[in-house]
Order: sequence, then structure tokens, then C-alpha cells
Amino acid sequence: MLKHVLEYIEFPEDIRKLGIEQLPQLCKELRDFIIDESSRNPGHFGASLGTVELTIALHYALNTPYDRIVWDVGHQAYGHKIVTGRKQQFHTNRKFGGISGFPNPQESIYDSFVAGHSSTSISAALGMAIAAQRTGETDRQIVAVIGDGSMTGGMAFEALNHAGFANANILVILNDNNMAIDANVGALNQYLMDITTSKAYNKLKDDVWNFLGKLSKFGPNTQTLAQKIENGIKAIVLKESNLFESLKFRYFGPIDGHDVFHLVRTIQDLKEIKGPKILHIKTQKGKGFKPAEESQTQWHAPRKFNKETGIMVDLPDASLAPPKFQDVFGETLLELAHKDTRIVGVTPAMGSGCSMNILMEAMPERAFDVGIAEQHAVTLSAGMAIDGLIPFCNIYSSFIQRAYDQVIHDVALQHLPVIFCLDRGGLVGADGATHHGVFDIAFMRTIPGMIVTSPLHEHDLRNLMYTAYKSGKPFVIRYPRGNGVKVDWKNTMEVYEIGRSEKIREGNSIAILSFGPLGNVALEAAERVAQTTGNQTAIYNMKFAKPLDIECIKKICKTYSTIITIEDGVVQGGFGSAVLEQTELYDFKGSVLRLGIPDAFIPHGTQEELYAFCKLDSGSIERLLISEFEKLHMC
Amino acid sequence: MLKHVLEYIEFPEDIRKLGIEQLPQLCKELRDFIIDESSRNPGHFGASLGTVELTIALHYALNTPYDRIVWDVGHQAYGHKIVTGRKQQFHTNRKFGGISGFPNPQESIYDSFVAGHSSTSISAALGMAIAAQRTGETDRQIVAVIGDGSMTGGMAFEALNHAGFANANILVILNDNNMAIDANVGALNQYLMDITTSKAYNKLKDDVWNFLGKLSKFGPNTQTLAQKIENGIKAIVLKESNLFESLKFRYFGPIDGHDVFHLVRTIQDLKEIKGPKILHIKTQKGKGFKPAEESQTQWHAPRKFNKETGIMVDLPDASLAPPKFQDVFGETLLELAHKDTRIVGVTPAMGSGCSMNILMEAMPERAFDVGIAEQHAVTLSAGMAIDGLIPFCNIYSSFIQRAYDQVIHDVALQHLPVIFCLDRGGLVGADGATHHGVFDIAFMRTIPGMIVTSPLHEHDLRNLMYTAYKSGKPFVIRYPRGNGVKVDWKNTMEVYEIGRSEKIREGNSIAILSFGPLGNVALEAAERVAQTTGNQTAIYNMKFAKPLDIECIKKICKTYSTIITIEDGVVQGGFGSAVLEQTELYDFKGSVLRLGIPDAFIPHGTQEELYAFCKLDSGSIERLLISEFEKLHMC
Repeated sequence: MLKHVLEYIEFPEDIRKLGIEQLPQLCKELRDFIIDESSRNPGHFGASLGTVELTIALHYALNTPYDRIVWDVGHQAYGHKIVTGRKQQFHTNRKFGGISGFPNPQESIYDSFVAGHSSTSISAALGMAIAAQRTGETDRQIVAVIGDGSMTGGMAFEALNHAGFANANILVILNDNNMAIDANVGALNQYLMDITTSKAYNKLKDDVWNFLGKLSKFGPNTQTLAQKIENGIKAIVLKESNLFESLKFRYFGPIDGHDVFHLVRTIQDLKEIKGPKILHIKTQKGKGFKPAEESQTQWHAPRKFNKETGIMVDLPDASLAPPKFQDVFGETLLELAHKDTRIVGVTPAMGSGCSMNILMEAMPERAFDVGIAEQHAVTLSAGMAIDGLIPFCNIYSSFIQRAYDQVIHDVALQHLPVIFCLDRGGLVGADGATHHGVFDIAFMRTIPGMIVTSPLHEHDLRNLMYTAYKSGKPFVIRYPRGNGVKVDWKNTMEVYEIGRSEKIREGNSIAILSFGPLGNVALEAAERVAQTTGNQTAIYNMKFAKPLDIECIKKICKTYSTIITIEDGVVQGGFGSAVLEQTELYDFKGSVLRLGIPDAFIPHGTQEELYAFCKLDSGSIERLLISEFEKLHMC
Repeated sequence: MLKHVLEYIEFPEDIRKLGIEQLPQLCKELRDFIIDESSRNPGHFGASLGTVELTIALHYALNTPYDRIVWDVGHQAYGHKIVTGRKQQFHTNRKFGGISGFPNPQESIYDSFVAGHSSTSISAALGMAIAAQRTGETDRQIVAVIGDGSMTGGMAFEALNHAGFANANILVILNDNNMAIDANVGALNQYLMDITTSKAYNKLKDDVWNFLGKLSKFGPNTQTLAQKIENGIKAIVLKESNLFESLKFRYFGPIDGHDVFHLVRTIQDLKEIKGPKILHIKTQKGKGFKPAEESQTQWHAPRKFNKETGIMVDLPDASLAPPKFQDVFGETLLELAHKDTRIVGVTPAMGSGCSMNILMEAMPERAFDVGIAEQHAVTLSAGMAIDGLIPFCNIYSSFIQRAYDQVIHDVALQHLPVIFCLDRGGLVGADGATHHGVFDIAFMRTIPGMIVTSPLHEHDLRNLMYTAYKSGKPFVIRYPRGNGVKVDWKNTMEVYEIGRSEKIREGNSIAILSFGPLGNVALEAAERVAQTTGNQTAIYNMKFAKPLDIECIKKICKTYSTIITIEDGVVQGGFGSAVLEQTELYDFKGSVLRLGIPDAFIPHGTQEELYAFCKLDSGSIERLLISEFEKLHMC
């Protein structure tokens, strides 16, 4: 056995040249490589350690890229990236200008489909299978790899329902590690546990065989009947395979997802079986790195760590820094929940990410993690609200796109007091284009009766949560990933007047109307412009994109020559356009400049890099202000 | 037995005063009432005939409105409306100012939840159940009534998964009539058929009992084992209950949904059983009205008919009228499919509504009805497109809201050539607020790289479909419900230059920029203004909301004093705002008036009534033009 196998692997063709006995060594080296790289360049860690053997087995048994592997939620695909021509670039993973943390067909022909959001793989694979039928490439193998967490997303079920009916030639590999980002929840998860943990089955199977052995004397049909009884018992005791076989999938498994030999043999066998098939494999998130095996949520996407000791590098002393918006949300929700028993929390599998786990731990009966199920989360909240509860429904901005119809049809149309806390608004950083939360301001403000807000800082967030709670109306509060600006964040909450803005900086000629946290960047830029040129820029913290502070905008139209809007959302149709719709009404003759995310999918990088890329950093705004003041002085 | 029972029924309390033996008579009269009313005032017919017995049984066995009935897709709820205080108003059903065709809590306390879109009821019911737990109203019964078609929607599965886990106290009644609007499709449907049609089960059950009778001599554990074997056989032969029991629901049924006694008894019994339960009832769509029983799709929502003969009233001679946009879509899709084998059609259960059934009948292997599953429909199309097909994915405008994330994440981000044909754009008429397709222009134009178009007339629709097919890009074509304006609709298709508008009327001072079919109304208004005042209004058929015809808008800014935009979508953030974003850049000093759907949920009525309500009829536009010309002349 070669000592260094991975060294010779650039592409899957190289894996297929190996003897099968070399695969465990390759898996070991691939796992070490992922650990080593991730210790220096943080990313999604646990999921990819769990799929090392599956990755190698798939590329060994299949003819990729002609055969298609569709990874569901691509952060299980680091191993795949490394063995498909990106080993040398892997140190650039998730960095600005580097490779993406998710599969991306524009990056590699081995990546069949973009996968940043979950539960899409079966639909995409079925589409590919139908395409293969139509284009005559019927020998193409199409495999979707989906986690048990992703399987709870409704569209995965929609796809199973169609695939079973269409009798398409696809293999779904259910990568069951009993986890979403947090511990997986839901009846499906319990069901999968039942399948794999039932000792009763093996015991009873033996009993029955012993028993049936005595039946041969009961006539010639006994043998057939006996087999049916055996299957029936399997079904009733184990409940094995029925859920998926009800949907006309052939079910295989569960098998050990870390036994690469068994995986290769099974995948090779399944290639010969036509129709829709599901292979259930059991894996362990974080496999092969002890701290990650033991603490899976913490190691889902850890920061830098020492790979020998498993100790993560220290964070700067947090007590002196402003808190994360997430923690302010979590603490404030608990504080409000203490005030009013009608308040509950709802999250689709993002309890730790959004810090609703603070409420979950303190009041487990009042916080509901519904699994990866955004649509259900919203309508569940509507059902709660119509019967008297006040739900804070926390969903990442880019994931609320999944529940847009439910926001319109189940919440807004019925004027229900559901409070949408949209975390990860704006550019999220290393997760990139699939995860940026940039469309929400535009698509929420078009909904009749919806109140759409964003905080400048922690006090705003707390006051907006309090205002939302008191309002009795559908309410959006969207705020960014990361830290705010107030070390002393825990103010006494006050109710804001709905639709009322606040002037936070005096100035002449130019007014910046800011929606959300970029106002802090605008403040910084305005200060520097004042220092260097003496020109004072007025800044308004608008707080509400809907309803807009119309009285304030009227006054601004009379007072200033230039209006600049700024937001961390798409510039077309967003907050700035809302302002423009008003200034047009008031016949404003100055110019309105709208700053925001340009009309393009923004790549990955640090948040700082990306905001600079979009010219939304303080330097860019400073230059813009200087240039605008010059224009005005020339007039 | 009273001859006229329904006469004495205003509210469910009145039903509960009846003896159970009077219920069949009440059902008969209620059914006759629905037939009679619907023959004169068309609406959703078949579904409500199928739920007459269920409606009566629910109100008889439950203490409504304290107990909650959540109707999934409310057009099965006409009987419910009639016995909950709205018998006298039922003739106003779906009429402007009349009662809504769907449940609406603002209309009646017996309507627990708005339900125009499908698959929401289990989520809402679970929310109510959790609210009841929290507020201490633990004796409240909460029932969701969901059709087998709606059950294929992913969010229904998300809700089952959560409800089974949450162990909530809800009853889901699966109203299985083997139909969506079209015949139901999918593996789930086959599964439900298996449950109810298996004769094998009854036969084998007898065999097994005879057989097991002989086993008593095999010792004391035989009895337990025998019962397990019986259950196991039931499971393997019938596959009974496993799908739902896998999700931790207790399954009951199937029972005859037209046997009101059995329904009452069963619902009463189930009240005593805690936890999540599913009752599977078999009903017939159109039950009790022979033509509707025999032709269920045709009678889903028939026009006026003679209730004695079952003959629908004649339509005006269609050969002389312009065709429906729907038929132009259907015929054109088939025409294109003949040209290019890569073209396929995808629809989520709307084949007859959008006329994709023309392709389905001619080329069944190239048209895919995926069931009520919009999310899957979009990502399936993406999977097809990435492997070389060119899918035309037809989804009603208000339903594409269900798949917004998939449009962004799976199609646009990968620049895939999926052609979204959004039927029912604009105000749809009698279906009302839940079904108006008014948000799409605004939420589609914010997506990077998306081409967003709307035809003025049939030739535009055909040319846009041809242009989309040739473009190789993500492409939206949204068009209204109903007839176009060209009798001679079948032009030779041509490719439009992307982002290029067309001037369709010469004029001075005022230019109307029209997006979509309201341009015809604008033309009419402009003609009348010219006749009465001599003022000529220029009109541009913009065709593209994205990319906008920037060169044209630049010229318009230089040429005209007033710009009026018109669209059949929300005025905030829509096409008009897109124009405004441009005119601001070109420093246009005239005024821009944006016409469109105002910022409110628009009720139901005829399309004509609703457009007039929104001041988008030709009279309103005429008055606006006259007033604007006067203003300009005064300057």
C-alpha cells in the first residue's frame, strides 16, 4: 500500500486506477487533509468529515463527471472538491477570489448543481434523469446525496412523490447522521432512529424463523405465507422501508457509511437496478476527529483550531466588544418572554445560529424548532397568532425566500401579528451568493400592511422587537450577521412610533437616508468628510422601509439638494426605490442616489471585502460624498 | 322527519339540535341548495359537493366555533359557509362586495383560517393546537381537512413531520377524492389507491385467521405473536397506515365520506383520542350531481348550467372572439415542441387551467404534471435545463410565490434557461385576494440576470415564447387570465431583441409606458382623449420590465413632459419603479406617474369591476390623461 495515496490523486480518474484495498488509506489521508486545511482556514467541517468514505466510494464506483453526483447542501462536499481538481486551491476555500464552499458548476464540471440551500437535490437529480432519458444518455447514473436534516424540507418530499410516480432512474443516498446544523428534530428523524436501533427486530426474526420452521406440515402454501409473514413482521416491528416504499422507492440499508468497501459494492450493485432507489447510510458528523465527533453542533463550522489538541483558537476578549446581533436577539427574546406568556419562538433548524437556543434552554415549552421547514414555520406561526400567541419567527433572510407565499397568504392577508426576525440580512461573507440576504427588503415592502424595519444598532433591535410585540401587526425586523456597535447594549426597551425616523447627524445640502446597519458606515464616512473638507452631511436613521416616514421625507425634499439612500439590500426595488417613489411625489428637483447591493450575484469573501466590492465601505462612501459636495459647490 | 330541514338551519347550533336521523335529509337539502345556487352563480362546485356529509358531521360532532375546522383550499367549504350564517348571502358568493369563495376569518368566526392556496391546513391547525395548550384551552378540538391533492404539497409533509414529533392534539381528515383540479398524480396518490382498493387484504386476512386458529397449541406466546403477525400482514399486504404511522400519526380509515352516521360516530370517537391522528375518508368529487360525478375536471368550477339537464349554458361563439391567452400558450408550446425536441413542459397540477394539456395529449412523454408542488416543479426544471432540455415551466403568478427561493437559488444563480410562463398575472377576478397575481413583476425584477416580460397581445406572447426559447437564459413571461385582443392570433413567430420596446401610438407631451395587457386599455383611453380633446398621447409597449429599454427611456425623457407607467402589478417596487429608477438617472424634470395595483389586498369580483376599483379601466385612464394634459397646458 502506498504511503501517500492522496498525493497522486488530482481527479476521480486517478481514484479509479487504485485497487479497492487502497481506498481506506486514501480516506484516511483525505480526512487528514480536510482536518489540516480546516484548522487553518475555517469552514464547514463536521459534515465533510462524515462523507469522506461516501465521496471516495461514489467516485470509485461511478464514472464521474458523466455520471452525476448532486450534493444536497454542499458543505458536505469538501472531500469531493479536493479529489476533483481543487486540492491545490483548497486553501482558498470560501475566501474572496477563491473556490466556493458549495458545489458550483461554473467552478468544476464535477459539480453538477449549485447547492447552498437544502432539500433541492432530489428534484435536480430527477430533472437530470428525465433529461438523460430524452437525450438518449440512458446509461448515465444520477445520484442525489441528501442528509436526514434536509429530508425534512417539504420539497424533498414533493420530489420523492414525483420520482416514485415517474419511475425515474435515480439513486437517493440518505446520509443519516442524525443532525441538521442542530440536532435533527421531527417524526422522520425518530422514524430513522427506529430503523437503525431496533434490537427487537433481530430477536423477533429469530423467534419467527424458529416458529415457522414448525409449519411445513401445514400444506404447500405455507412457504409463501411464511415469507409474507416474515416480511410483515419486519414491517411491523422495524417499520423498515415503508415510508419510502410507500412512495414507490426501493429501499436499501441502513449500512455503515464509513465502510468504504461495503459502500463501493452497494453502489456498484445498485447501478444495475432500474427505477427510483434509496440507500440509507449511517454516518457520523465529525468522524475521525474526536472533538468534532463529541460536540457536533460546535464543530459544524468551527473557527481556527489546533489539530493536535482540538482546541479552538481564542477569540478576542468579548466582554469589551459589542455583542453579536444574534445574541442581542436571543437575550431580548427571553426578556420579552418573561414579560408576556403569549410570546413564543419559532425557528426552522436555526436555534443555535440565531441564538433562539437561549429561549429554548430557559423555556423549552415556548420555543419550537420545526426542522428545515421554512414554509411550515411561517404558517405554524400564523396558526399560533390567530389563536392568541405572539410568535417571534426567526429565519435567515435568504431562507425566508422559501416561505414568501406563506408570508403573503397566511400572515399578511390575515393581518396576523407574526414577528419575522430575519437574521443574516445583507452580505453574509464566506457562504457567498447562495446565502446573502439581499432581496428581502424589496420583496417584503411590496406586501400590503407589512411593517419592514431594520436596526442601526443593538438598541434599535431591542426597541424594534419591543415595538413589534406591542404592535399586533405583521412585522419584519431584518438585521445582519455579526457584531453591532454598542458595548452597553442592554437599554431599557421603548416603543417606537411606527414609521418614524430619527436624525442622527446634522448637515447641509446632502442628506443620507439610511436603512439598517450601514448607517454606521455612513456615519464614519461623514465624520471623515467633515474633518477633511468641513462639509457636514446629515444622516437619518430611517428604521422603517415600510411605512416610510413621509413627513420627514417631505421636509428633506425641501431642505437638501442631494439625497443619498443606503441599504444592505438590492438596489433595484429596495428601500432606496421606496424613497424615490416618495420624492417623485413631492416633486424633488435635486438628485437621489441609491446605494445598495448592485444587480448581480455577489461572491464569497469576508463581509468587509464584499461590502468594499459593492462600494458600501466607508472609504467609498467618503469619496462619493466628497465628489457630491464638489458638484454642489460648482453649481 | 321534517320535509325542510335546511330552512331551520342558520348556524351549527341548529344542526346540533337535530336528531342524528335527520342528518341525511339535511345533507340532501344542502347538496340541492349548492347545486341550485351554483347553477345560477358559478363557483367551485365539485369539491363542495364531495364534502357535504363531512361538513354536517363535523359541525354536528364538534362544538364550533370554539372547536376549529381548518379547511385546506377553501373551495371545498361552500356547505360550511351555508350552515354558518351565510345561507342568505350565498347568492353573492365570489361577487364584488359579496362573500368570498374561500374561508375568511374576517367574514365569519366559523372560518378559522384563510385558505386559497393549498397544503397550509396542517401547519395552521398545529399552530392553533399549540396555542390551545399555552392558553389552557386544552379541550378545544382542532381539525384540518385536507384533500389528497393538497397532501402532495411539501409544506403538508413538513407539518406532518413536526406534528408527529410535537405530539400535538390534532385531527387531520384526509379527504381523498383521487383528484387535484386535474386527476391527482404522484406516488402518494398510488399509495392511497392501494390502501382502498386492495381486495387481496380481505382475502388474506381470512386465510390467516383460519391458519392462526390452528396455532393455539404452540404455547402461551402464540397469541401475542399471532396478533403481531396479523398486523404485519395487514401492513405488508395493504401497506395500511405505514406512511402516516411512520410519521407518528395514528391512522384510521379509510371510511366512506358520504356515510354521515359513520362520520359522526368516528369523529366523536376520535375526540377522545389524544395526540396526532389522521382519518382517511373516501369521497367523490361532484357527489350527487351525475354530470359532475362523471366529468370531474370539467365540473371543478363550471360556468352556469341547467340543474335539471346538467347542460352548461352556451358560450358566445368563440370562433369570432380573440382566444384566451391560455390557449395561445398551449398551442404555441406544442408548435415549439414540434420544432425542437429539447423543449418540455412542466406544470404543478395546472395542466388544464394553463392549457398545457394540449402538449400532454399530443406528446405525453414531454409534459410533466408534478402535482401540487411548485418548489419541486422549479428545481426539476433547473435539473432538466442543466442537462440540455429547455423547460417551459407554467405556474400561476400567485403560486410561483411558493417557489421564489428555487427561482433565485436553483435557476437564476446558475443562469439556467428555464422559461417561467406565469399564468393569471394581474387581477384574476372571482377567486380574489388569495389568487391575484400582482407581486411577481416586483419580486422577479430584483433577481440578477432574470429577463422579465409581459405581452400586450397574443402575437407578443408567441414572440416572447419564441424569444425565450432562443435566448438560453432565465426568462419570465407573465400574462393574464382570459382573452386577448387578436382574433387572428397565429402569427409567424419572430425573435424580439431582448430589452427592446415598441412605440405603438404617436403623441406629444405625454408618454404612456405600458408593461403587459393594460396597454390595450391605455390605447382605448388615448383614442377617446384624442377624439374629445385633440390631444395625442404616445404609447410604448415596453414588453420588458427587465432589462428595460434604456435607450428608449433616455429619448422619452428628452421628448415628453409627463411619463405615465401602467402595469397590472403592485405599484410599489414594480415596473413603474424600475422606470423611475432610470428617469432619475437621466435627470428627467417632468413628472412620472405610476399606475398599477395599489398597496392593499384587492377583493374579489369580475376582472372588469376590480380593474375599475383600482382605477385601471379605460374611463379612469381617460380622465387622468385629460387632467394631465390640462395641467401641461396651464404651464
